[in-house]
Amino acid sequence: MPRSGEEARHRLQQAALELYGERGFDATTTAEIAARAGVTERTYFRHFADKREVLFDGEATLGAALEATLDSTPEDVPPLQTLLRAFLAAVPRLEANRPLTEARHRVISASSALQERQLAKGEYLKSTLAAALEARGTGERVARLAAEVGWATWAQAVAGWLDDPSLTLAAHLTREFDDLAGLTSAVKPR
Amino acid sequence: MPRSGEEARHRLQQAALELYGERGFDATTTAEIAARAGVTERTYFRHFADKREVLFDGEATLGAALEATLDSTPEDVPPLQTLLRAFLAAVPRLEANRPLTEARHRVISASSALQERQLAKGEYLKSTLAAALEARGTGERVARLAAEVGWATWAQAVAGWLDDPSLTLAAHLTREFDDLAGLTSAVKPR
Repeated sequence: MPRSGEEARHRLQQAALELYGERGFDATTTAEIAARAGVTERTYFRHFADKREVLFDGEATLGAALEATLDSTPEDVPPLQTLLRAFLAAVPRLEANRPLTEARHRVISASSALQERQLAKGEYLKSTLAAALEARGTGERVARLAAEVGWATWAQAVAGWLDDPSLTLAAHLTREFDDLAGLTSAVKPR
Repeated sequence: MPRSGEEARHRLQQAALELYGERGFDATTTAEIAARAGVTERTYFRHFADKREVLFDGEATLGAALEATLDSTPEDVPPLQTLLRAFLAAVPRLEANRPLTEARHRVISASSALQERQLAKGEYLKSTLAAALEARGTGERVARLAAEVGWATWAQAVAGWLDDPSLTLAAHLTREFDDLAGLTSAVKPR
């Protein structure tokens, strides 16, 4: 039996990742995840609201980390540059967890229910980023646009890094933001 | 009884929009939608795969219209500018259907199941746009980034237009793309 709540939580996540990978998301039950983790199903539901949530714990941690960097960035740094700084600050934790991130990515890609949950989490993180930019003085509409565009660029960098580990995540991220600047420099304000 | 398949389809969409608006998405059945449209439930499922799909017919039409404009835009027009042209070409149809779009927007905003389907449709449309840009000679990675960013900007323009009808959709769209250019001009390539 795991000793602490934190340990149980971690074992449940590991067990879910294994079982979803072995049998698929649809064919796995929360009872089976709990059994493999050596805890009761009741413990499962004390930690996670449903069968999908067990894979999305990192999203809240990432959101909090991004917010903290945003809050500590000087207010004269423009919105997208502020987001890029925050993403770069989150890179080391992702680099350290690459094997977990890869396994999670494979499991999510194989299930439309998990992809839908991931999109919903992305929506939530984007609204967190938009609110943080607004709190720094960016207008509401531009803050939302910056959060959308910044998040899309970040997500593409992470996907690129998972496909191609020959570049670091920081290098992927810098390249995507450079391409973003190149793309939009051709859209001239009228 | 509606005379043609097209008419039945249109009546089913109208009936679904009404019932989802009156009772909510969860409390409405496909049998009730069919009854209000004056057709059998079997006819419902001949037209739509499930309870959600009835609200997303316009997505395929929009995708086809955007693709057609993309295909007819000279290849020396840069990717985001190409997308902006395609979106502007789609504006008149949306302006003409504003009451329908508003009702649909209200219904979707009230249901997380419908929001998830809408996100999934957005993913599909983005991959259509990315493929069309790639076919015009844009590199795969940059085409995907342009589609993500262009779609986010378009979606924000449509949301802004639904909130604030004092500006035309074309004006909202132009303003969002101008803001996008302003945002990224501050992200300097290193």
